[in-house]
Amino acid sequence: MKTGGKQYAVGVDFGGTSVKLALVSAQGKIVAREKFVTADAAGQTAWLGAVAAAIDRMLAVAKLKKSALAGVGVGVPGFVDFEKGFIHDLTNVPGWTAVRLVAKMQKKLGLPAYVDNDANMMALGEIAYGGGKNLQTAVFITLGTGVGGGIVLDGKVYRGAFSMAGELGHISIERNGLASPQGRGGLEQYIGNRRIVEHAVQLLKAGRTSKVEALCGGDLDKITPELLAIAAHDGDTFSREIFDYVADCLATALASVTYLLQPQAFIIGGGVAASGKILFDPLRKHLAARLSPHFAKRIKVLPAKLGNDAGAVGCAALALMSQ
Amino acid sequence: MKTGGKQYAVGVDFGGTSVKLALVSAQGKIVAREKFVTADAAGQTAWLGAVAAAIDRMLAVAKLKKSALAGVGVGVPGFVDFEKGFIHDLTNVPGWTAVRLVAKMQKKLGLPAYVDNDANMMALGEIAYGGGKNLQTAVFITLGTGVGGGIVLDGKVYRGAFSMAGELGHISIERNGLASPQGRGGLEQYIGNRRIVEHAVQLLKAGRTSKVEALCGGDLDKITPELLAIAAHDGDTFSREIFDYVADCLATALASVTYLLQPQAFIIGGGVAASGKILFDPLRKHLAARLSPHFAKRIKVLPAKLGNDAGAVGCAALALMSQ
Repeated sequence: MKTGGKQYAVGVDFGGTSVKLALVSAQGKIVAREKFVTADAAGQTAWLGAVAAAIDRMLAVAKLKKSALAGVGVGVPGFVDFEKGFIHDLTNVPGWTAVRLVAKMQKKLGLPAYVDNDANMMALGEIAYGGGKNLQTAVFITLGTGVGGGIVLDGKVYRGAFSMAGELGHISIERNGLASPQGRGGLEQYIGNRRIVEHAVQLLKAGRTSKVEALCGGDLDKITPELLAIAAHDGDTFSREIFDYVADCLATALASVTYLLQPQAFIIGGGVAASGKILFDPLRKHLAARLSPHFAKRIKVLPAKLGNDAGAVGCAALALMSQ
Repeated sequence: MKTGGKQYAVGVDFGGTSVKLALVSAQGKIVAREKFVTADAAGQTAWLGAVAAAIDRMLAVAKLKKSALAGVGVGVPGFVDFEKGFIHDLTNVPGWTAVRLVAKMQKKLGLPAYVDNDANMMALGEIAYGGGKNLQTAVFITLGTGVGGGIVLDGKVYRGAFSMAGELGHISIERNGLASPQGRGGLEQYIGNRRIVEHAVQLLKAGRTSKVEALCGGDLDKITPELLAIAAHDGDTFSREIFDYVADCLATALASVTYLLQPQAFIIGGGVAASGKILFDPLRKHLAARLSPHFAKRIKVLPAKLGNDAGAVGCAALALMSQ
C-alpha cells in the first residue's frame, strides 16, 4: 500500500454490539487497541466523546502525539455516502439516521476523518495488510449471519456510482430461487449462517444421519456452522456434503464475479471461512469447474488473515491512503 | 469525454467478416468511413497495408493531415493484452495468434496505436458518445449470437487484472443450469439468439400457437428473434412471453451486476435490443423487482444508440482519450 507522510492512523470499527478502535502503523501493525460497548455510548455526542477518549488513551500507550496521525477512518454497518462523509442509516444502531459524521468527527477530533461501509473497510484491511497483501485488484467476501463483501480495484476501494457497490451477498445464483427483500436467489439466502443450519437440520429431520447429531447432544436447534465444521474435519460425510454445497453456491457467485471483474484473487473471511480446507478445497474445485481455463488459471482463492481486526485495520488504511 | 489536444482519431472494428474503419472527431462525429472484407486482406501484412490505405483515403476525404490524428484504436474479436498491445488469439480469424499488433501498427502507420477487445470498444463508444453519453460509470451489454459486454468505470474501460473482464454473457443465472465450456447457467445459454429461437420452437412444437408461425411461413426453422419481435409488436401473446422470459433472464444477471458494481446505467445493444419496448418494458420491470429500492431507484436501463458504429467509434474514443 502506498501511504503518504504520516505513519499512523486510527481505525474505528463501529459495530452494533461494540466499537473497536485500533492505532495502526503504515506497515499495518496494531500498536494500541481500545473497545467500548456501543450501548454504553448511545447517541452521537456520547459516541464522539467515547471515541475521542479512546484515541487519547491509545496515543498515550503508543507514546505518540496526535500530530503523528494521518486521520481517523470509521467503518459502519449501514449505507453511507462516502464522498459526503454522510451516514444514511445504520442497521441495528438507533439514533444514526442522516448524520454528517465526517464533519462532526473533524470538529471533535481535529483530525481528517472518513466514513465507509464496514464490509468495504474489511476488504481494504485484508487487501492492504491481510490475506490479500501485495494485491492491487481483489474482491473480499465475508461469510457470517449475512454475506457481505467489498471490492478493491487498483489499490482503492470501489464504491460504485452511489456508494453502495460490493453487495456480494445479493448476487443471484438461482433465477427462480429463494425470495428476499433484495430479489430472488441471492447468495446470502443459501449460505448465510442460519440458512446453512436450516439446510442441515432439514436433511437430518428427513432421515440423514451425521456426527453433528452427537456434537449437539441430539438437540438439532443447537447445530451451528462451527459444529458442522468440527464434524466435517472428523470425516463426517453429511457435514462434508453441506460444506460442498456451500462451496458450490459460493463458487457460482464467484464465477460470475470473475467473468465480470477478473480480480487477481478472492479473499474469504468470516466465521464459516475459518472452517479451512473443508470449505476452501471444494470452493477452489467448483470455481475452476465453473470457469473457462483462461479465467480459472488466473484466479486465486485466499483465506482472510486479520479476523476481527480487519475492519479497524481497513479504516486506518483508508486514512493512511487518503492523506 | 475528456480528450487531449488532437481532435480526430481512427477506429478500426476488426470483425471476422469485415473490417470497418471510421475517422471520428472528438465530438464523436464520424467524418469519413472505410470498409474491407476481412478475407480480402488475409494475414498480418496484407491487413496492415489495407488499414494504412483506408486511413489515407479517409484523411483525403476529410481533408485532414495525418498529424491531426491522436492515434488509431483497434477492436478485435478475441483475447488481447491491452497493456502490451498484444493479441493472444482471435475467434474466427486465422493467422492472428500471438501478434504484437500495437508495435506493428505504430511502425507501419507512424501513429500511436491501441488494441482492445471489441465488446470493450463498443462499451466505450456507447458510453462516450452513444446511449450512455455523459455517464461516467456504466455497463454495456450486447445481445446477439453471443452475449458480450464491457464496463466503463469513472470514464475509463475497466479490463480487470488480466485484460479479460466484462464477460457478461457468462454470468450464471442458474446454479444447476445449462452447461457450456464457460461453466453452468451462463446468461448467453439462455438469451443468445439461437437459444431464444430454440426455446420458442420447443414450445411451439409442444403445442403452443403464435403469429410467428404465419410470419415464418409455417417453417419453424426460419424463426428468428426479429420475427418474434414483429409478432410481439403485433400483440402476439406467445412472442411477448418469450421476450418476457428473455428480459427476466437478463434482469437476473443485471441485478447481480447492480449489487456488485452499482453503475449509473446499463446500455443495451445488439440485434435483440433493437426490439425496443417489448424488451425494455419487461426488463425494467423485472430488474426493479430483483433489486432493493435503494438500488432499483438509482439504476437506469438505456438503449444503445450507435448500432454497428459503436465498435469503430469506441476505438477512436480510446485513441482520443489516451493522447
